[in-house]
Amino acid sequence: MTTTKWWIDGGIFLTMDDDRPLVEGHLVAEGNRIVYLDEAHPGALAEGAERIAGSGLLFMPGLVNTHGHAAMTLLRGYADDMALQAWLRDKIWPMEARFAAEDVRAGAQLAVVEMLKSGTTAFVDMYDHMDEVARVVEQAGLRAVLARGVIGLCSEAEQRAKFEDAVRFARDWHGKADGRIRVMMAPHAPYTCPPAFIGRFVQAAHDLDLPIHTHMSETAAEVEQNVREYGARPVEHLDRLGVFSRPALVAHAVHLTDDEIALLAERGVAVSHNPASNLKLASGVARVPEMLRAGVTVSLGTDGAASNNNLDIFDEIRLAALIHKGVSGDPTAVPAREALKLGTVYGARAIRQADEIGMLKPGMRADIIAIDIDQPQYFPRTDLVSHLVYAGSGRDVKHVWVDGVQVVRDRVCTRLDEERIRAEAAARFERLKAKT
Amino acid sequence: MTTTKWWIDGGIFLTMDDDRPLVEGHLVAEGNRIVYLDEAHPGALAEGAERIAGSGLLFMPGLVNTHGHAAMTLLRGYADDMALQAWLRDKIWPMEARFAAEDVRAGAQLAVVEMLKSGTTAFVDMYDHMDEVARVVEQAGLRAVLARGVIGLCSEAEQRAKFEDAVRFARDWHGKADGRIRVMMAPHAPYTCPPAFIGRFVQAAHDLDLPIHTHMSETAAEVEQNVREYGARPVEHLDRLGVFSRPALVAHAVHLTDDEIALLAERGVAVSHNPASNLKLASGVARVPEMLRAGVTVSLGTDGAASNNNLDIFDEIRLAALIHKGVSGDPTAVPAREALKLGTVYGARAIRQADEIGMLKPGMRADIIAIDIDQPQYFPRTDLVSHLVYAGSGRDVKHVWVDGVQVVRDRVCTRLDEERIRAEAAARFERLKAKT
Repeated sequence: MTTTKWWIDGGIFLTMDDDRPLVEGHLVAEGNRIVYLDEAHPGALAEGAERIAGSGLLFMPGLVNTHGHAAMTLLRGYADDMALQAWLRDKIWPMEARFAAEDVRAGAQLAVVEMLKSGTTAFVDMYDHMDEVARVVEQAGLRAVLARGVIGLCSEAEQRAKFEDAVRFARDWHGKADGRIRVMMAPHAPYTCPPAFIGRFVQAAHDLDLPIHTHMSETAAEVEQNVREYGARPVEHLDRLGVFSRPALVAHAVHLTDDEIALLAERGVAVSHNPASNLKLASGVARVPEMLRAGVTVSLGTDGAASNNNLDIFDEIRLAALIHKGVSGDPTAVPAREALKLGTVYGARAIRQADEIGMLKPGMRADIIAIDIDQPQYFPRTDLVSHLVYAGSGRDVKHVWVDGVQVVRDRVCTRLDEERIRAEAAARFERLKAKT
Repeated sequence: MTTTKWWIDGGIFLTMDDDRPLVEGHLVAEGNRIVYLDEAHPGALAEGAERIAGSGLLFMPGLVNTHGHAAMTLLRGYADDMALQAWLRDKIWPMEARFAAEDVRAGAQLAVVEMLKSGTTAFVDMYDHMDEVARVVEQAGLRAVLARGVIGLCSEAEQRAKFEDAVRFARDWHGKADGRIRVMMAPHAPYTCPPAFIGRFVQAAHDLDLPIHTHMSETAAEVEQNVREYGARPVEHLDRLGVFSRPALVAHAVHLTDDEIALLAERGVAVSHNPASNLKLASGVARVPEMLRAGVTVSLGTDGAASNNNLDIFDEIRLAALIHKGVSGDPTAVPAREALKLGTVYGARAIRQADEIGMLKPGMRADIIAIDIDQPQYFPRTDLVSHLVYAGSGRDVKHVWVDGVQVVRDRVCTRLDEERIRAEAAARFERLKAKT
């Protein structure tokens, strides 16, 4: 890749940097980094740069989706509005059992198109056949933290094979695609992985110097089961197993006590809050205001498209801003600016990349999205943060750059054939359904 | 208006008619009505008709927004994340007190652009300076049920002037704009209108044969106040005052007992559920599953843009499908198809126009929206109702027809100058702010 230079001429920049939240001016990027952001014209620095007209656009850091299963876009709308266990047992698991590598590729491609077009520039993914997902990420040009998710309710031989696959995947892909791909260790959940199995992943995470990602305390039933089987709630259980001795990201964290919240804060465990999925599956409402007050890093995830059913982080941002007010009775809970941080700065922090992404600032990576604000829902121009949070949508994203490269231009993915990807996903789904 | 004929050639029609929910075929409209909808080619009926290519589009009835204050788009983002009383007293009411007719016109225009482009073809509006709103509706081409909202906490002379204005507005506008405009009587709320004042509106509603629209039981505090002042909760209080002797539409209805729900069902009172506004203002979560079970007509409203902060009914549909699951713990609560009915069929029923709109069916008015489903979030093509509810957005609306006339073509309003309207709204807001 040749080093390119580009200059956004006259835009509004929502930096997510508290020291300088809004800049009306100019941005210059060189290679994969922002080198200039100021009210003043960049002068000589703009020479030889590709000029991008910023008028009518709002620029902000790309969004971070900290929990999902990209391939599950293939099951979008396949089964909804069912009780969780029946949904999994009768619908989702039988279909997933039939997933071949090609299905994961088709689903991941569809997911990446949807994420990029709605402004997500970095995502966390936990699934099987992860080489396929990694290859899609490499080609599509976005950033990802990938993990071979493993369920340990199987024979010792199968456990070993899954463990080895997870380690092999980490060795093959961590740091690849110009550093855009990183890897985590991911035992699926305390209720699907025996303690000894989790222990092996903790050890591997230490050996390979990788973070750990897992589902935790998504439903009340799973917390009760944990207490019955292991004599402790999931937070204490995972802590005893050493999971939190590594940088850790836990998805859901809906059912927490005050003590558990305090322990997550103390251990520096980051949370991926998945409001749409938690509501749709009737899991409950996570205690986000309390976690934020306690100093826990809370970020946002869509979860898989089978339980959401979309991958637009703007939707999660709005839900996070709305539901905690409605449920707590406190209209000041999770204000708009905080909600937007969940999807940007805190997302970057949750995946341990806050020094590189999540803010627009000279020295940071050029992961930038441009929002078309010449639309009725962005008027009057009272408060752009409020408009983005309460009235914005991923559909308003016009351009996307990741690592300095434009990957969406005028709402079209530059490195992917969207029409072919939609058709492939449709065909793979029909094939899976026919197998029943 | 000359009678025109047009033919949608080869589309998918989500009719919202339980007898025939999905038709892949053809629709012909003549004048303001649907005259044909079938799998088969319309043959001679298509002769001389304007042909609209339906490929890649999903057609459904236009959405109905059953509660709002259009002019309040002017205050979008002006004040958020505050406690309700401070928000009203310190921010909203002082600004509203400065509203001139021109402000209402500017705000209503902006609202109508946003609603039309996001697929709303009929809306309920309660505010002051309603002649301005009516003129905007007349020009824009959509359908509306308008009401001069009145607060009775004022002198007898002021009360009389407001009452006379409401009656005069009804006489001037009910049935106008080719019947697209209808009028209701609208005492603002039991806590802002003394009983005798409400009684006068009930009498006027009888005399003029009009329905009644009011806010009811939005907050717990307001219910308590009603009990203190009148010895009854709002439902019983309004019932005693005769409000439910008229066709009635109540907005919010968040805090209801089982008995109140039963009474609303018995009296045929329709409810406008406003999930985004109720969450944002921390009012609570309405008992929608219980109301639906009891046979109450529940529809959806955005409320004003100052407490939402958008007018996209797709957002309310998704919220209605998500929050009642999450809060009740029942993942089967408000399934996708029911949520979509809230925004279409039940909306039409709530404004007593179910014989004319809310369904695609020969004989019904041609109020139709076309959704661009060649987008990733509509793949695979498993269940289009699910995709619309859980992944759809008003931004996906490509064309809109109301009463047989195309009012949005390729995402642009055909009868309104969007750029001028955005600029006027911005200018009027700056002017209002400068007055402080």
